[in-house]
Amino acid sequence: MVDSSVNSRRDYSQGLAALQEIFGDRACVDINICANHGHGEGYIQSMPPDMVIFVNSTEEISQIITICNQYIIPVIAFGVGTSLEGHVNAVDGGVTIDLSQMNEILQVNPQDMDCRLQAGVTREQLNHDLRTTGLFFPIDPGANATIGGMAATRASGTNAVRYGTMRENILGLTVVCADGKVIRTGGRAKKSAAGYDLTRLFIGSEGTLGIISEIQLKLHPIPMAISSAVCQYPDLKSAVDTAIAIIQSAIPIARIELLDDVQMKASIQYSKLEGYMEKPTLFFEFHGSDNSVKEQSEMVGELSNEFGGNDFKWSANSEDRNKLRQARHNAYYAGKSLSPNRDCIATDICVPISNLAECLVETKKDIEQTGLIAPIVGHVGDGNFHLLILVDKGQGEEFKCAKSLINRMNMRAISFGGTCTGEHGVGIGKKHFMAHEHGDAMYIMRLIKKSLDPKNIMNPKKIFDM
Amino acid sequence: MVDSSVNSRRDYSQGLAALQEIFGDRACVDINICANHGHGEGYIQSMPPDMVIFVNSTEEISQIITICNQYIIPVIAFGVGTSLEGHVNAVDGGVTIDLSQMNEILQVNPQDMDCRLQAGVTREQLNHDLRTTGLFFPIDPGANATIGGMAATRASGTNAVRYGTMRENILGLTVVCADGKVIRTGGRAKKSAAGYDLTRLFIGSEGTLGIISEIQLKLHPIPMAISSAVCQYPDLKSAVDTAIAIIQSAIPIARIELLDDVQMKASIQYSKLEGYMEKPTLFFEFHGSDNSVKEQSEMVGELSNEFGGNDFKWSANSEDRNKLRQARHNAYYAGKSLSPNRDCIATDICVPISNLAECLVETKKDIEQTGLIAPIVGHVGDGNFHLLILVDKGQGEEFKCAKSLINRMNMRAISFGGTCTGEHGVGIGKKHFMAHEHGDAMYIMRLIKKSLDPKNIMNPKKIFDM
Repeated sequence: MVDSSVNSRRDYSQGLAALQEIFGDRACVDINICANHGHGEGYIQSMPPDMVIFVNSTEEISQIITICNQYIIPVIAFGVGTSLEGHVNAVDGGVTIDLSQMNEILQVNPQDMDCRLQAGVTREQLNHDLRTTGLFFPIDPGANATIGGMAATRASGTNAVRYGTMRENILGLTVVCADGKVIRTGGRAKKSAAGYDLTRLFIGSEGTLGIISEIQLKLHPIPMAISSAVCQYPDLKSAVDTAIAIIQSAIPIARIELLDDVQMKASIQYSKLEGYMEKPTLFFEFHGSDNSVKEQSEMVGELSNEFGGNDFKWSANSEDRNKLRQARHNAYYAGKSLSPNRDCIATDICVPISNLAECLVETKKDIEQTGLIAPIVGHVGDGNFHLLILVDKGQGEEFKCAKSLINRMNMRAISFGGTCTGEHGVGIGKKHFMAHEHGDAMYIMRLIKKSLDPKNIMNPKKIFDM
Repeated sequence: MVDSSVNSRRDYSQGLAALQEIFGDRACVDINICANHGHGEGYIQSMPPDMVIFVNSTEEISQIITICNQYIIPVIAFGVGTSLEGHVNAVDGGVTIDLSQMNEILQVNPQDMDCRLQAGVTREQLNHDLRTTGLFFPIDPGANATIGGMAATRASGTNAVRYGTMRENILGLTVVCADGKVIRTGGRAKKSAAGYDLTRLFIGSEGTLGIISEIQLKLHPIPMAISSAVCQYPDLKSAVDTAIAIIQSAIPIARIELLDDVQMKASIQYSKLEGYMEKPTLFFEFHGSDNSVKEQSEMVGELSNEFGGNDFKWSANSEDRNKLRQARHNAYYAGKSLSPNRDCIATDICVPISNLAECLVETKKDIEQTGLIAPIVGHVGDGNFHLLILVDKGQGEEFKCAKSLINRMNMRAISFGGTCTGEHGVGIGKKHFMAHEHGDAMYIMRLIKKSLDPKNIMNPKKIFDM
């Protein structure tokens, strides 16, 4: 269990009073509201803040941070609480800024295929609002997260293999810094060589350097044609080798999702997928022109056959596709339904694709040896995969066993030249892998943190300890 | 003229003696060698260092910086000196580290489509060495620059429109920091959400935060098919509008290069391009499968016709293509040949594509009003274009006139939501636009510089002044 280190709390009462004076009812100290803001969707114990303030503007965020800076009070940004590694937990209490009401899309520029929005806009809201423009925002981490939260954790998801991650899809940001100053990073040009890449520095900084309040986001044209396919394989390695061959052939595939036999068992039941076996399975999606989609599908079909995939059929039927997408999105709930009374621990790693098969097969063997139920799903085109580990409630033997499984899996990823998290972020849960992964580079991260947030008020004790 | 501020030089003799003791003959104080290292290819007056050291390893760079840190001596990294904005000029003298002998390709991983190399490898050397692997490195800024220099200036070039810039094509770096410590940033996984994006922070930092000594670089499969086309337009706006329409149609074009009438005049003469008129012209290149290249070419042909482009013909003939590519690469020399006795000033800006036509047309009018000869070439798919301004030798009236033309052009780009440099970088030449472009964000850049390089020894007086 993570130590919440409440001992290091100072007395915040003066600062909290100052905030209450300005924000009145919107500065909540209600115990339930604070409790709801003390955790994301992950397994890490809730750590409620002392106050939650629902903000409407960048200026309000600036006001709050200015006061928190004066009184040295921790400040945590909160979107809709879908993070998995304890990113929003208030380790030392303090003030949580809830940005969910900052949900305005400020500008859509169809000609430039970009938009500007407030950080509290969710990805489903954005795509709903874009539906008449012919454009869409592709990044899809599964959860209906806020764009601000996705930026802060450098999120990606099912179609990053084609469209990239948040890192590649943000042009610029408005950020409120640790002293309350508001800056704009980046711009609207597609590229720039003018100075330090502050945009990329704040993306993935998990609120530890400043709070992202607005985002200039790249959009993409809705493809003229979309097709999808499913294929099942005799074993995990054959499925993964197919994925690797596809990537190495530079087929511009839009989604290539792995579900192992355990996950398929869960999804067949939960999402009523008919006609599938409990075998390692790849879901494919192709975007492009009619010709290109056909060509991609055929090439993938050939590769899939070479690795023993069963009868490969592709379809442009959107009903089939939506059912598959939905099943993929519901993989978490399906996995959970394998043992409804247990808790879930979701974790992810990412490795170079040449090591993916070995890393996955070793991890699968490791799971089997633990006896835990832990379905695997993966964005395998990127070398990224997830475990959903089911453990008894409370933090008994299964929890401990799961934690050591996660430890081994992360160290394995790092030893394969990979990373302890492809997309979930570090938060609290993965802090102890950072030195293993980054070695001496950690001191540069600490120098940056110290210079941008000298009082360590911005989401303290996340990513690394000072 | 830029003030070289030699007044702020300290006495470096003790530190230089310590370096000479370690490096012997490789620590050159020869006046000619120092003079050759005092400038890139740009117009900014040479500012020689006091010593040039030719290094062979990261460890040697670390040794040098450790001593320079101790004696507070400026340290400047030098590859092959192709930069354009005074990046390598030794404003306050000091030690230039020449990395051109660190030109080893350390590892090529065909399965992961990446490689690791020393910073002194040039892009032509890399592609030559890769020729049997089926892979290539696409970023092509024209000059045969080193990969280290390209990383440090966030370079891009003709096919960034498809393959991205150095920002998108680097997985990780080895960097020697201002205190001599060596760190490794990033990794080999395709994506990661583990901590601050130090890789992106060093890319484009122009040697002001540390010296990049090794690079983990993404590679791409050589396309199965390549075709090219040329089309000429009645006026600049029609050419640009064609480019914009292509981008907005999401055609995955690999190159879309604009040459204005003046540049065409120069290139027809210099590169012996037969059958072309002195009119605004687009060069196109398509990468993909046979079908996809055909489809892309046809779609572009249709769009081009709509905007009054002349007879659009595409060809898969590599001889034609190489001639066009060569002509594009030689645009600089062709432009220069319009008035061989004059000096050249090359400058670039980048704007959102919706503003590109207006920005280009206004700039063209501005050039005409000055009476200067200044051909335009552009990577218009990215909203990026260049002027090559020809001015009398010495720094008389034409030079002054060119400088104010550049000022207006940069302020115009910024007012259009763009940037003062799409790919050349800031160096000395564009420092005064930084505050206009980035506003309050400059203080965050300064905080970072101060924390990572507290003695201001790393390429001082570049990008911004402290």
